[in-house]
Order: sequence, then C-alpha cells, then structure tokens
Amino acid sequence: MKFSRPYDVSELAEMLNCDFKGAAKADGMNEIHRVVPGDIVFTDHPKYFQKALRSEATVVIINDDSVEIPEGKAILITDEPFTAFNKLIDFFSPMQVPSEQIATSARIGKNTLVMPGVFIGNDVEIGDDCRIYPGAVILSGSKIGNRVIIQSNAIIGSLAFYYKKRESRFERLFSGGGVILEDDVEIGAACTIDRGVTDFTRIGAGTVIDNQVQIGHDTHIGKMCLFASQVGIAGCVNIEDGVTLWGQVGITSGATIGKGAVVLAQSGISKSLEGGKTYFGYPAEEARKKYREMASLRVLPDIIEQLKLEE
Amino acid sequence: MKFSRPYDVSELAEMLNCDFKGAAKADGMNEIHRVVPGDIVFTDHPKYFQKALRSEATVVIINDDSVEIPEGKAILITDEPFTAFNKLIDFFSPMQVPSEQIATSARIGKNTLVMPGVFIGNDVEIGDDCRIYPGAVILSGSKIGNRVIIQSNAIIGSLAFYYKKRESRFERLFSGGGVILEDDVEIGAACTIDRGVTDFTRIGAGTVIDNQVQIGHDTHIGKMCLFASQVGIAGCVNIEDGVTLWGQVGITSGATIGKGAVVLAQSGISKSLEGGKTYFGYPAEEARKKYREMASLRVLPDIIEQLKLEE
Amino acid sequence: MKFSRPYDVSELAEMLNCDFKGAAKADGMNEIHRVVPGDIVFTDHPKYFQKALRSEATVVIINDDSVEIPEGKAILITDEPFTAFNKLIDFFSPMQVPSEQIATSARIGKNTLVMPGVFIGNDVEIGDDCRIYPGAVILSGSKIGNRVIIQSNAIIGSLAFYYKKRESRFERLFSGGGVILEDDVEIGAACTIDRGVTDFTRIGAGTVIDNQVQIGHDTHIGKMCLFASQVGIAGCVNIEDGVTLWGQVGITSGATIGKGAVVLAQSGISKSLEGGKTYFGYPAEEARKKYREMASLRVLPDIIEQLKLEE
Repeated sequence: MKFSRPYDVSELAEMLNCDFKGAAKADGMNEIHRVVPGDIVFTDHPKYFQKALRSEATVVIINDDSVEIPEGKAILITDEPFTAFNKLIDFFSPMQVPSEQIATSARIGKNTLVMPGVFIGNDVEIGDDCRIYPGAVILSGSKIGNRVIIQSNAIIGSLAFYYKKRESRFERLFSGGGVILEDDVEIGAACTIDRGVTDFTRIGAGTVIDNQVQIGHDTHIGKMCLFASQVGIAGCVNIEDGVTLWGQVGITSGATIGKGAVVLAQSGISKSLEGGKTYFGYPAEEARKKYREMASLRVLPDIIEQLKLEE
Repeated sequence: MKFSRPYDVSELAEMLNCDFKGAAKADGMNEIHRVVPGDIVFTDHPKYFQKALRSEATVVIINDDSVEIPEGKAILITDEPFTAFNKLIDFFSPMQVPSEQIATSARIGKNTLVMPGVFIGNDVEIGDDCRIYPGAVILSGSKIGNRVIIQSNAIIGSLAFYYKKRESRFERLFSGGGVILEDDVEIGAACTIDRGVTDFTRIGAGTVIDNQVQIGHDTHIGKMCLFASQVGIAGCVNIEDGVTLWGQVGITSGATIGKGAVVLAQSGISKSLEGGKTYFGYPAEEARKKYREMASLRVLPDIIEQLKLEE
Repeated sequence: MKFSRPYDVSELAEMLNCDFKGAAKADGMNEIHRVVPGDIVFTDHPKYFQKALRSEATVVIINDDSVEIPEGKAILITDEPFTAFNKLIDFFSPMQVPSEQIATSARIGKNTLVMPGVFIGNDVEIGDDCRIYPGAVILSGSKIGNRVIIQSNAIIGSLAFYYKKRESRFERLFSGGGVILEDDVEIGAACTIDRGVTDFTRIGAGTVIDNQVQIGHDTHIGKMCLFASQVGIAGCVNIEDGVTLWGQVGITSGATIGKGAVVLAQSGISKSLEGGKTYFGYPAEEARKKYREMASLRVLPDIIEQLKLEE
C-alpha cells in the first residue's frame, strides 16, 4: 500500500500518539512478507524483532525502545504495535461502505457482460470483454483485467483471515489491500479470493481456477497456473508460473511452489517445493518417493505377521 | 425447541392419531444428542430403545408398545416414529416462507451495516455494530449477537442434512431449529452453518471462522475458537473453548473436541479428542505419535529392500 | 447434444472451412466419454485417434488426413480440432445471455416456491412442489424435476472446467450442455454443479447432497445416493445407484463407482471401484485392508527400534 505522499516518522508518531527514534520518511506500509523500501511494518515479539528491523521496511512499529536502529531507519514505539498498524490501515485505506448493488464509481470496460445479481463495490476496475456471472461479489479494492471470467457466487476481495489473539477476543487486522486478477484469468463458481492486508493478492495472466477454491490474503500466483476444485491456499503463498494443483490440495501459509510443479489431488503442502517436479501426499513429497512408501506399507501387515511367526 | 405451554401425552397422541402409554407432559422436543427434561424424542430401532427411554427426554415416540416405561415418563406408539416426530416439528415450528429480501419482521440493531444483496429471513434477530457483506443469506431462526461479521455469500441457517432412508426415497427431517452466533463471532465468505433440527446450532462468543467452512446441525462451538478455511464439521459435534482447527480438517458426527485442542491441517477426526493437545492425521492422533509413524514409514522401503537381500 | 436436423459432413466442413473425407451425416455432438451414434467428436493427439475413430461417434474432427476411416463414418480435417469443436458448440448452442433475475422464458411448475434473490436463466425448466432458497443460481440449460430442493447460494449449471493448453493461454471449451436434476433430488447450500460440455450432467431421482459439494461436467449420478458435505467429484464420473460418499471425499475424472458402494470420509478415489463394498484412504481401497495397514503402521516405529537394538 503506497501513500499519496511521504510521511515523516514524527508525523506518524503524532498520529499514533506514541514515541519514535531515528529519522526517516515512509511512503507506504505492508505485511512483513511483502515489504519494500519506504514501507512501515510492525512487530510485537522479540523473536521477530531482527527480522522486521533488517527487512526492506524503513519504519518499524515495535514495543521495545532499546533495539538498535539500522542506519536510515526509524522506529515507532508503542505497547500495541498491532493496534497501531491497524490504525494506520484505517487512516490510509478507510473501509468503503457500499450502498449500491453496482457502485457508480466502478469502471467497467467495453463488451464486459455483468449478469443479474452481481455486486460490484466502490472504485472497482474491470477491463474489456469480461463475463461476470449471476451472484458474483466483487468488493472494493479489486482490479480486474481483460477477458476475465468470474463465475456465479464467487467472491473477490473477502477479508484477510489475520488476527491478534487477545485475552478475551481475536483482534482483526483490517484489510486495506485488494485483489488483482490479470488478463484472461478465470475464477470458478463459489471461489473465495481474499484481499491483501495492505497490498494486493495477485493472480497472474491466464491462470484458470475451478469451483470452490480458496486463496488467502497477499498470495501471489503466477501466470498460466491451473487449480482444480476445492483447492485451499493460505495467505502469503508464492506460486510461480505454470503450477498445476489437483483437487482438494492444501497449501500452508508462506510456502513457495516452484515453476511448473504439479501437485496431485488431496496433497497437503507444509513447506516450499522446488519447481518442475510432481508431488503427492501429506506432507507432500516427490510422488515416486511417496508411491514407494505406499507400496511398502501395502506389504507391511504380512511382513509383521511373518516376523511374529518367526519369533 | 420449547413449546408455548406443556402438552399432555394424551393431547400429543390425538395430534399424531396414535396410542400412548404412561402419564406425562412435554414442553419441548429435541434430537437425542440435545434432549433436556420435558422433551419429546423419537427412536425407531431396538438398538437405541434404551438410550432414548433412559435419556433426559420425558416422552419417547417409539414403534414398540412392549417396552418398560421409566417412572414419570410416557411413550407415543406408532409404526413410524420419524414421521411422527416430523409432524410435531411442522406443527410447533412451521416453515416460514420468506417473501421479502429483508423481512420486515427482522430486528436489526443500531450501527449494523447490511450491505446490498443480503437476504434476512422472518423474525431474524441481529445485534448492534454488525457487518453483513453482500450476498450473505440469514434464514429465519437465526439469532445474531453484537459486533458479528458475516462475509459475502455465507449462509446462516441452511437445512440439517438428516434423513430417514425409505424404500424409494430419503425422507427429510424438517429443520425447526435455528442458529445462534454469539457476540464478536466472525464468519468467512461462502461458509454454511446449518440450523438445528429442533434446537440451536451455536457458535460461542469471539470465535472466528475462515472462508468455506461447513458446520452441521446442532453442533455447539465454544468461545474463542479459530477455524481455518475449508474445515468441515458434521452435525451434533461439541467443540469446547479455544479450539484451533487448521485448514481442511474434517470432524465426524457426535464427536467432542476438548478445550484448547489444536488439530493440524487436513486431519480427519473420527472420535472424541481430549483437550490441551495437538493432533494430526487420519484418524487424528497426537501429532508427535503420528510424526514418529511418518518417520518410520519413510525408512520402511529401504528396510524391506534390506530384508529381501538378506533372505 | 442433438441438433434439430441431421447435417451432412460436407455442410459441417463448409461451416468449419476445412476438408473432409468419407460420407456421413451427424445429428449431434459430444465429449468422447458420452458419444452416441450420429455424434461428432474430436481428437487432436495420435494417442487417442483410434479411440475416437472406433467410438460410437459418426464424425470425427481430427488433425491427420491419413487415418483409416471406419465404414459409415467420416472425418473433418483441421489443424485445430479443439477450436473447430468449440465453433460447432457455439453454433449449435450459443451462449444465452441472461438479462433478468428470473427469465420470462423459464417454466416453473405449480406449488414451486422461489424465494427472494434467486436467479433463473433462460429456458430453465423447474417442476412442481420444488423449493429454491435465497441466492440459488440456476443457469440456462437446467432441467429440474418435481419436489426438488435447492438450498441457498447453490449453483446449477456452472461452466465445465475443460481447457486446451496453448502456448500463452488455456483455451476454454465452451459449455453447451446442461444439468438434469431428477425428481426428489436435494442440493445443499453453496454446492456447485457444472453443466455438461455438450450433454447433461445428471443427478438421479432421490439423491441427496449436503452443503459445499462440487460435481463436475458430464458426471452421471444414480438414484438414491447420499453425499456428505465438501465432497468433490470431477468431470465424466459415473456413480451408480445407492452410493454413499462421506465428507470431503474426492473422485478423479472418468472413474465409475459401483452400485451401493460406501466411501468413508476424506478418501481419495483414483480409479473405478466395484459396488457393494466399503472403501477408505487414498488411494481408496477396501476399508478392512486399509485398517490392517493402519494398524501395522502404528506398531512400525517400535519394530524399527527393536531391529536397531538387535543389530
């Protein structure tokens, strides 16, 4: 998320009513997985202090005033960095309340077919020659390319599932980001594509997605991927170009799936996978390795019986 | 489900045009997992006769007039207890046919934001400061607390998946119950929360649920639980406070998950689990036990090869 | 898909601006899994040439003019059989663009309850005594029997997930078929039922389906089946009568599941299964065999430890 102008750390400290150290300007803010120079990021656990301070971020919201501040950076000091970050999201990207079924501020390209019962939020951009099927919901913060198909009851821009656990409730991180669907993307019926927290969830050109697929916040998907039905992808995942995921595959938060990888149905991916290979099982491993394990498991009962007889 | 007044078993017998034995009054009715004193319950298989007769229920609809009736209870005798029970649901909680997008009989609290395209059924109650996103469907029988978020195309109050198999069709049990979402509950996009058969499906205060989660009829979920995307929970499940279920977990009907349990992604739960532990796999077992099995499976192919060489 | 009259192969060649060989008339077209005599089918890979030429189809669109043509058949010769087939679908079953929430051309039976917010496409047929819940989407090409229940936000007639991979994009096969739901079928909330490519996806009388189930294009489901929540069935699957699939089961494309089979929760079916048995696991095998494997896996870590000690 980029701001309309750079903000001095002293201005930000005033907005958050907190102390600061160091001297720097910020012109944007982001989740730790997606920060770029100029960004504000937050951290509230000593375990992640160094990761945040050494990241590309220029300003770090933190609950410790004794940390060493890298050259050219600054910190904002508060007991509740999560809440402070949330305040900034709310300031820089206030929630847009829709009042119309199709917002008058939405820009819809030529030859784009919007069927009955579609919802289109404020400032949504949709390119040319798209088809949006009945009941699809496209929330504000969505930018959609040309020749995109969005099938019935799919949701583009649902809220990030991102909370801070408090004593008596989960405090939700506001979702100030959006969703980008590049040209020729196709989204199946009843899919849910979460918006980014401060950045965009992005689906690359030509990627086609079957029904009932879930894609988490800030996930980046490459070009020409193919995902079968009921795949579930967590937040902050990186999927490179040409990846195939078969039905009901699940991918954990933060993983990277290399270019051209194929993941067989129902596999569970708990860590990053190299491109160009075929994977299977839970945790997903190279399919031929997994098949060998499965074959050995098949003969195991007889082996155990044999061992018992020999004793 | 509680009635407006107690009904004598003789009255009920007249309504159902059937015989009765014993003397008792009933002031409600419920599914066997949820009965309380005063309730009517039904049973039609000798295997479950004693369970029904010894339950908290006061009146039992049954297809056997020779059973011994516990003190203070009564039975209604019919060849088709399921159909008789269905008749009573229909009498005490007739289906409410909606005719408006937002029922005039619905009560909606202050500062609650109902976005375009939302459906709200007859007599639905929604508290203050809620946000209901475009396309959400809230059917009659739903009671929703304060500060609740319901995302796009989520369905609150879908019908219980509960049938009696007949020769040529499945006879559906009518759904006369509802759904309670307590304060600060958050429901993801495209979730489906079934209503109770005669009682409430209940989600405790502060529980947050990601997209595309299914929750069956009469399931009770505690406070401050967190369920990731594509979790599927069957009917009549009890989930205690503070339980975490990661993506694509499935839970079988009738199971209890103890307080604070954590279930890792894609696990399948086929029986009740103690609280305070971490579980994994299908059937789900303690994760460290499962990891040990997985490690041993990984070396099994080489061991088998070795055994063959030695022979 | 049947045409209004037979077309001579010379006419078709003219429409496609391509060459032909042989003499025959076609009165319909279909996907290879569903062809009947008189149909046009396509093939573009030598591996499948014989399958297509020897199928029930009468006319084969093919990218090789040197194949031997069976007696009574004809071929249409083009470099791009997929694109040619797509052109014919578009000609014989042009996309119907809906302009109304409930099409005036839809035929809706008596005592059928269509609740607010339902979409019904052009020429849809719905029988008597049905209940269609708020937010359900029934696209053109759907034929629905009597006493059918379709719950909220379910989608009947989403597009087939069927593509030809090109250099820089996936070329979608047009969906010119439809969906048939026979009498007494019940479809859960947020289900997605894809239409056939040129034929019908079909769900047999009395089959009941829980929430969030996916059914692919051209799949045929028998009578009196019961599918629990979050089941995913690919395209061109054949499920015979009385099959039970428990929660989160997945079935691969083209498989046949025999009459009365029961598949336990979360199983993955990668090939056809005989009827009358209970299956479990991934790949799904007979449950008792799988249980034996699971029991042996449970003792494996101790056996391996033992083996190490003995060395």
